[in-house]
Amino acid sequence: MPEPGAGEVLCRTRYLSLDPYMRSQIAGRHTSGAVVPGDVMNGETVSEVVRSNVTSFSVGQLVRCMGGWQEYSVHVASELSTVADNIDPPSYALSVLGMTGLTAHAGMIWLARVCAGECVVIPAVTGGVGSIAAQLCAARGARVIGIAGSGEKCRYAIETLGAADCIDRRSEDVEARLGKLCPDGINVYFDLVGGSILHAACRNLAHYGRVVLCGLMAEYNRADRTPGPAPGLLIGKRAVVSGLVVYDYEPRRDEFIRECLPLVVQSKLTQREDITVGLANAPAAFHRLMSGQNFGKVIVKA
Amino acid sequence: MPEPGAGEVLCRTRYLSLDPYMRSQIAGRHTSGAVVPGDVMNGETVSEVVRSNVTSFSVGQLVRCMGGWQEYSVHVASELSTVADNIDPPSYALSVLGMTGLTAHAGMIWLARVCAGECVVIPAVTGGVGSIAAQLCAARGARVIGIAGSGEKCRYAIETLGAADCIDRRSEDVEARLGKLCPDGINVYFDLVGGSILHAACRNLAHYGRVVLCGLMAEYNRADRTPGPAPGLLIGKRAVVSGLVVYDYEPRRDEFIRECLPLVVQSKLTQREDITVGLANAPAAFHRLMSGQNFGKVIVKA
Repeated sequence: MPEPGAGEVLCRTRYLSLDPYMRSQIAGRHTSGAVVPGDVMNGETVSEVVRSNVTSFSVGQLVRCMGGWQEYSVHVASELSTVADNIDPPSYALSVLGMTGLTAHAGMIWLARVCAGECVVIPAVTGGVGSIAAQLCAARGARVIGIAGSGEKCRYAIETLGAADCIDRRSEDVEARLGKLCPDGINVYFDLVGGSILHAACRNLAHYGRVVLCGLMAEYNRADRTPGPAPGLLIGKRAVVSGLVVYDYEPRRDEFIRECLPLVVQSKLTQREDITVGLANAPAAFHRLMSGQNFGKVIVKA
Repeated sequence: MPEPGAGEVLCRTRYLSLDPYMRSQIAGRHTSGAVVPGDVMNGETVSEVVRSNVTSFSVGQLVRCMGGWQEYSVHVASELSTVADNIDPPSYALSVLGMTGLTAHAGMIWLARVCAGECVVIPAVTGGVGSIAAQLCAARGARVIGIAGSGEKCRYAIETLGAADCIDRRSEDVEARLGKLCPDGINVYFDLVGGSILHAACRNLAHYGRVVLCGLMAEYNRADRTPGPAPGLLIGKRAVVSGLVVYDYEPRRDEFIRECLPLVVQSKLTQREDITVGLANAPAAFHRLMSGQNFGKVIVKA
């Protein structure tokens, strides 16, 4: 257990968020930097203040911070933010009201500006980002087509997340099904996975279709990279392809929470969590996430 | 010589525009459709009315139309537009004030919204689209870096088109030079060529850099297609990549001409034309265009 210095706060990890970007940090390819052997793995946490040398945070209070894959972490006050009392369970501060929720909101609402009546395709639709994106788009009157890794996940996408339909990528021909389910083309594709599904989606784009590039789940475990869609295809579609890095939207996090917290409190926005107990089990939980065996946002309860 | 029917106009080709998209039509891959053996090659022309069965066009008048690679063409009135008397030479209605000028304006002004102080990279910078794009961007205070196929073209880009610098793609390492000439990254890349230069430009994009995909000059003669930049690169750059098809901007052609004609009349916007005399020489001129031997907008004078 480290000692907090002057102006520092000692925090104990209560919940740790596991996210695919961590794989990219291990590979040294992430925009936020690399994690090398000997480093503590990065990770957003909901932590409890156990000792405080600042006036703005007091012992027992729950905070959100980059605590990492460890029991205790020390922070200056500017690295901490309060977890509001009405965020229940507190792990929601890491999922629907945390970075994954912010990513979904930034991508679909602020960047792609999804509108009623539009056809939106979301892969990994039951995952942390996908599940919030689906609900936000459906709530705006968009027709959401999900893509997921099992029949059970597809049913969940339709019954709980508001998807109009969902493609089981393990048992169905994704491109052929996209063609059938989106006869007028895809207006918005939220690319959380990269790889062949990105190409299939681009071939099925509507004219002026928007693609938000956000994640590369299908690629993080590979050394090579699938190239992007051919320029000629994007020209013919008049496509608009935008790269999204959620950190850029950090200044708008409060605005996002103001908008989404009421929806969560009213159960209009739900988050299925895939909770593993015990920090020692984080590596195994991360492996399950990276192989698509999780079902919902992956959280480790310390 | 065909006979115009009721409501039709017989036109004689005076100037024919040759453009790279024609190669793509021959390959059957262009968004506007295919040209197959036995068809007349498509092409925009400035033509003279020689017989008219409509009241809105009279004999002797110059019109712009899709006359094609032929001496005479017959049109209904809605397919013709008047070439204003002050467009001098009339071939400018096919270049700076025609489809190539409209493409440059649509791409750089309407779509990319180039601003003063931005670093804009334009390949094929002495060609039909590139040369107008360079002048429009420089006039807005952007710092234009051209790419061209010879030292002579590079000098022209700097001395006449307002480029701050120009890379000779045949004798220089384009990517290394882009890195040096754009130390803070490229804000806007106007992709008229595809291929390796697109990838080099994307690796040198600034954060939030915009790429306007417009042409594939480097690829039209090949059966395969270079894939696009990897999604991970575009994410890290927060890039915005947009496909441009000039036909979509046809309704704004008058607006474009209102803005640019005064600049042409005042010689603030110039067009170097590469003129071949005689329609029979159009195939040879087209071959010169596709191999980059032209210098300026390629026009055939009938």
